[in-house]
Amino acid sequence: MQDDSTTREERNTSATTSGASTRTSGTIGGERGVEQQLRHATSTSAAGVRLPSTRSLVARHSVSPLTVQRVVQRLVGEGLLETRAGAGTFVAVRRRARRADHSWQTTALGEARSEPTVVGTALAPTPVGTTALHYGYPMTDLLPGRLVRAAITRAARSPLGLDRAPVAGLPELRAWFAADAAGANREAPAHPDDVVIMPGGQSALSSIFRALAAPGDAIVMESPTYWGAIEAARQAGLRIVPVARGAGAPLSDKVDAAFGSSGAKLFYAQPHFANPTGALWSGADKRGILDIVRAHGAYLIEDDWAHDFGIDFDVTSLFGDDPDGHVIYVRSLTKSVAPSLRVGAAIARGPARQRIQADRTVDDLYVSGLLQVAALDVLTNPGWPAHLRYLRGELRLRRDELAREVVRHFGNEALTSMPRGGLNLWVSLPERTDVADLVIRSRDAGVMIAPGNVWFPTEAPGPFVRLNYTGAPPEQFAPALATLASLLH
Amino acid sequence: MQDDSTTREERNTSATTSGASTRTSGTIGGERGVEQQLRHATSTSAAGVRLPSTRSLVARHSVSPLTVQRVVQRLVGEGLLETRAGAGTFVAVRRRARRADHSWQTTALGEARSEPTVVGTALAPTPVGTTALHYGYPMTDLLPGRLVRAAITRAARSPLGLDRAPVAGLPELRAWFAADAAGANREAPAHPDDVVIMPGGQSALSSIFRALAAPGDAIVMESPTYWGAIEAARQAGLRIVPVARGAGAPLSDKVDAAFGSSGAKLFYAQPHFANPTGALWSGADKRGILDIVRAHGAYLIEDDWAHDFGIDFDVTSLFGDDPDGHVIYVRSLTKSVAPSLRVGAAIARGPARQRIQADRTVDDLYVSGLLQVAALDVLTNPGWPAHLRYLRGELRLRRDELAREVVRHFGNEALTSMPRGGLNLWVSLPERTDVADLVIRSRDAGVMIAPGNVWFPTEAPGPFVRLNYTGAPPEQFAPALATLASLLH
Repeated sequence: MQDDSTTREERNTSATTSGASTRTSGTIGGERGVEQQLRHATSTSAAGVRLPSTRSLVARHSVSPLTVQRVVQRLVGEGLLETRAGAGTFVAVRRRARRADHSWQTTALGEARSEPTVVGTALAPTPVGTTALHYGYPMTDLLPGRLVRAAITRAARSPLGLDRAPVAGLPELRAWFAADAAGANREAPAHPDDVVIMPGGQSALSSIFRALAAPGDAIVMESPTYWGAIEAARQAGLRIVPVARGAGAPLSDKVDAAFGSSGAKLFYAQPHFANPTGALWSGADKRGILDIVRAHGAYLIEDDWAHDFGIDFDVTSLFGDDPDGHVIYVRSLTKSVAPSLRVGAAIARGPARQRIQADRTVDDLYVSGLLQVAALDVLTNPGWPAHLRYLRGELRLRRDELAREVVRHFGNEALTSMPRGGLNLWVSLPERTDVADLVIRSRDAGVMIAPGNVWFPTEAPGPFVRLNYTGAPPEQFAPALATLASLLH
Repeated sequence: MQDDSTTREERNTSATTSGASTRTSGTIGGERGVEQQLRHATSTSAAGVRLPSTRSLVARHSVSPLTVQRVVQRLVGEGLLETRAGAGTFVAVRRRARRADHSWQTTALGEARSEPTVVGTALAPTPVGTTALHYGYPMTDLLPGRLVRAAITRAARSPLGLDRAPVAGLPELRAWFAADAAGANREAPAHPDDVVIMPGGQSALSSIFRALAAPGDAIVMESPTYWGAIEAARQAGLRIVPVARGAGAPLSDKVDAAFGSSGAKLFYAQPHFANPTGALWSGADKRGILDIVRAHGAYLIEDDWAHDFGIDFDVTSLFGDDPDGHVIYVRSLTKSVAPSLRVGAAIARGPARQRIQADRTVDDLYVSGLLQVAALDVLTNPGWPAHLRYLRGELRLRRDELAREVVRHFGNEALTSMPRGGLNLWVSLPERTDVADLVIRSRDAGVMIAPGNVWFPTEAPGPFVRLNYTGAPPEQFAPALATLASLLH
């Protein structure tokens, strides 16, 4: 009934997904033939008419009975067929449809409280034949696929392959996150009890914002910053106080002023390889900003999203030097281990942890133990550090290649900085470039890019685009940038 | 650092979980021996000291090298050991710890906005040797374990075993939920586009409440009702307007009055096998209440939590007769398929669906495709209807057995009603029974029961307990009820 753009996007993904799985099984023609025959029969026959038997479909289309069963299940799912045990498959009984009236909902819902369209930008599926520079996740070639699939298969046989996981998460996985967050020899090691397992980094942010602030409260944020954090803060009803950030950290006195004028008790930041700019806080930045946060009796939410994506720099979390719990640490495995293993963690010391835990528990009770067992399996596998070494090399190669092409076509001034880690280049386009128009024309020309405005809590101060160097093969970078340049000139 | 009750509960669960897996592998003594030796060594040796080799541990404890590796990984996770490639295992370098000061957080956090302790009641792990009548989930014997483990193993090899799922969910799974919710021959079939895949029923409720109401708005609820819905409404900042419910539906005129006086646009209800009472709305109840909801231009949130748990009654959703989108349908697979496959759905027609989708996307972006593929595999397997038939027989046997024991010890008047489905009996105890005290004494006597008050949005109007007949083997029912009776008399 709705036919908005999200729905259309999902359809594209669906087609791609099932296309991929069909290709793997090597029965394209046969399976499609079965489906076409059955769909045709349902649209031309009366309800209750019996359809051809599995045996006859197998014979006619040279497919296995399993393939026929798969097609039948799909059409049963769509409500076109009905199966009756022992009797066969039949055209489903037609259902009456009267025109629905949803107009009353306008009154019931009232004004919308958030603008969800931004979500589509970095998550939009990539049509076949298009170069994906807009995407937020590394392509599957860069994931430890073999490790992940083996880990899931083992996890399926464990007790938590079936049963419920503890509310705060698997103790061994909490211990892993605690050890990994603070590192060895740090002033303030994390305790496993401080860790709350989350279904990914986004839900960690949502829970932290809801748990530690009330609607109407202020939150300080770098600008530009991760769009998901901006949206989560809005969902929680918070008032965003942006602090401009260039190639390094925001200026200490600006942060101090933002806290002072707003009364904020939260500061959301990405100190390492920030999304989208790739910027990095120096050691002095960290000490200076942490002092300000302490002075205001506030929390710094350290979103360590790119922990595993250092290229020529290793992350040292602020969390490891903060015994009193001013730093709340967020980490996700979604981008580095696998998007299918939706597991992350929030780590907080003191009463903040209880508040965050309570929010997450009420929101969705617990994270699938299957995913937690599989994630821990990957992280403690000797193949994991080996994969991270491989990944580092790939990131370097891709970053350098994309940066070279950006500079070749748009000049040195276009590359705002050379990131020392992360997945993205943040590109400054010529003044007065119409970015929204460029995004559409470049998509039509086969290159998907992300418009910079979604990373700003307020208006974008100039024409920026974010280019991800892990969503497409590097040999596509040169032609893609040539396309962009031709569209701009 | 925190050592509150939640943390202690998690530890219990952890011990149970790892105990179970150790038992399966049949190496209790060996693995424990390795762990004890290594823990002892780390607590008595200086940092950097080299620990015994895998070979010597294998020889001493008669275990496999894999077992040693598992223990080492666990202790590395806890930060006690360090491994250096090719060199061996060492006592980790000690970390300084100064006493942390979390007192500043009292000011930063302000007053708590919700009371999370209630969450523990129905999720509390069961110590070994205890009869679990308090638990919210069926024991694993009642789950289709073989189907689920095989489905996960297959899903691990699919594209979504690794990659990201579409934001609204897997199209085939959305189609399955749509067909299942409305059923055949109904006035208003659901369209797959109306379905938003959720990580379970609890997150569906959280998103619906946040998306369709603003903080301070009213929501009508049956009383008693599911504690998770009460907590989710509080988390969303809603004002709960309770309507008393007995053995059937709440009275129409009371529902009408609740809408009229509060201006609520939401009514949360469990029309079938309600948790905790097992009560059922009749066909006339459904028509009457739906008319009132329509007249007030409001939404009815139909939580069909026990869809798969009918014993001598089959669920006919209200959703199937509501073309204009007044009914928002919630369904979860967690309890009937497996707690590890954290998958559910919200189905809504009209703009409500977009609001719900936007909230869920901002909260956690998407649900693991691995879990969705595995869930769909189970649901479309011929073994699934066979399992549901087996389950129905088991539920009947267990309900009847527990009901018999309740009546034997507490009389007919204790059994508020004989539920025609669901997992629970709702037991009314003698006037002036101190339920909180009984819960503690009965736990100490080896029987866990759930105090009725957590299911009431306000004060409990009498002494009730909820007894679940699927969390323990039925042969434990008679001795457990005898224990309860002896504690009461």
